[in-house]
Amino acid sequence: MGTVITIEQKILKKNNELAEENRQRFDAHNVFVVTLVSSPGSGKTSLLEQSLALLREHLRVAVIEGDVQTNRDAQRIAALDVPVVQIVTSGTCHLEARMIQDALQQLDLDQVDLLFIENVGNLVCPASYDLGEHLRVVVMSVTEGEDKPIKYPAMFRKSQVLVMNKVDLLPFLAYNLDEAREFALRVNPSLRIFETSCTTGRGIKEWTEWLMLSARTYRSGIIESSRL
Amino acid sequence: MGTVITIEQKILKKNNELAEENRQRFDAHNVFVVTLVSSPGSGKTSLLEQSLALLREHLRVAVIEGDVQTNRDAQRIAALDVPVVQIVTSGTCHLEARMIQDALQQLDLDQVDLLFIENVGNLVCPASYDLGEHLRVVVMSVTEGEDKPIKYPAMFRKSQVLVMNKVDLLPFLAYNLDEAREFALRVNPSLRIFETSCTTGRGIKEWTEWLMLSARTYRSGIIESSRL
Repeated sequence: MGTVITIEQKILKKNNELAEENRQRFDAHNVFVVTLVSSPGSGKTSLLEQSLALLREHLRVAVIEGDVQTNRDAQRIAALDVPVVQIVTSGTCHLEARMIQDALQQLDLDQVDLLFIENVGNLVCPASYDLGEHLRVVVMSVTEGEDKPIKYPAMFRKSQVLVMNKVDLLPFLAYNLDEAREFALRVNPSLRIFETSCTTGRGIKEWTEWLMLSARTYRSGIIESSRL
Repeated sequence: MGTVITIEQKILKKNNELAEENRQRFDAHNVFVVTLVSSPGSGKTSLLEQSLALLREHLRVAVIEGDVQTNRDAQRIAALDVPVVQIVTSGTCHLEARMIQDALQQLDLDQVDLLFIENVGNLVCPASYDLGEHLRVVVMSVTEGEDKPIKYPAMFRKSQVLVMNKVDLLPFLAYNLDEAREFALRVNPSLRIFETSCTTGRGIKEWTEWLMLSARTYRSGIIESSRL
């Protein structure tokens, strides 16, 4: 399998180069870019909908949606009157930096302060592909069991933020929130953790306020994007 | 990317050959093999635990567990005193036929009637890898949203059975079971659908009785395994 590994390394190297190009472009336009990753069905799009409703009052937001099939997520975002581009990967299990480059042709970055990228629902493969984002957020639903961080460690290691979603369902689950948090921090001790419910709205304000502060800090140039 | 596609096709071709070898071996030992696939956290292992408790009264069962990291699932199965082999893929996003061949070295197939293979939690990549199983079961939790079958169609197209799990949570979700079922059947009209809850036990009896009947039908040689 030596050839395969070499090819894979070549692909990842090329992807990293394109991701760096993306990041330079984002920086040139002063656009703060946040990627959401998770299992299928953890609630990334619902979290986006809730967040956009608050964020758009303060920042010019745009979204790139990634899905294996359908443009359903883009339709949900477009309904909020937020600029959105749908990438349909047609079977590919993750977004790549070159797909983001293509999608950017359809966005005017001078009109955007904060760009969200919602990746394909997959806790494994997207971990390897830098897209040029400044911040990677892993969303984990509390219905998924406590041990996902230690079973899929790469994704939690390569994210800076963990959003524990669907906490409104906690009363109906045998779920140990402390254990899940402990597992996540064992894999990545510097993870910043939020707890949210898109049904009750719990935690959405704290999460979006922190995001707004991060975007403003980035845009004011106080800290280097690479340090986030 | 021509080289990459060629390499991928080579890998899949080789995998299909090894999967066929596995299937012949299972057939030679009269072992009915069922693979479980799903998103991370849909409840595959819990479904297995519940099913094994009933099935082991009637059949000699064994389990191969696949995870990116940890042997937690194998520990859960071993606690039921069922023979289990853990495959840790160390980053690979799916099981492959050659991994099953390696795992089979640790199982005495003459002592097994029904073998479960629990794949890595991933709704995309495992769809492409035949393991030599006779039946592929996709598990979908009702907390994941209705549209997963049309967003990740390959997995639902390449499965024969859909288990809709965690139905005990339906009263607390805005989830349209009929719509989800319609989406699944749109992608694969011949899917056999079960509804289960591992918390209340709902549907477990129907699912395991059907599985037992399938295993017996296979083992009695009434139908060709390829027709299942």
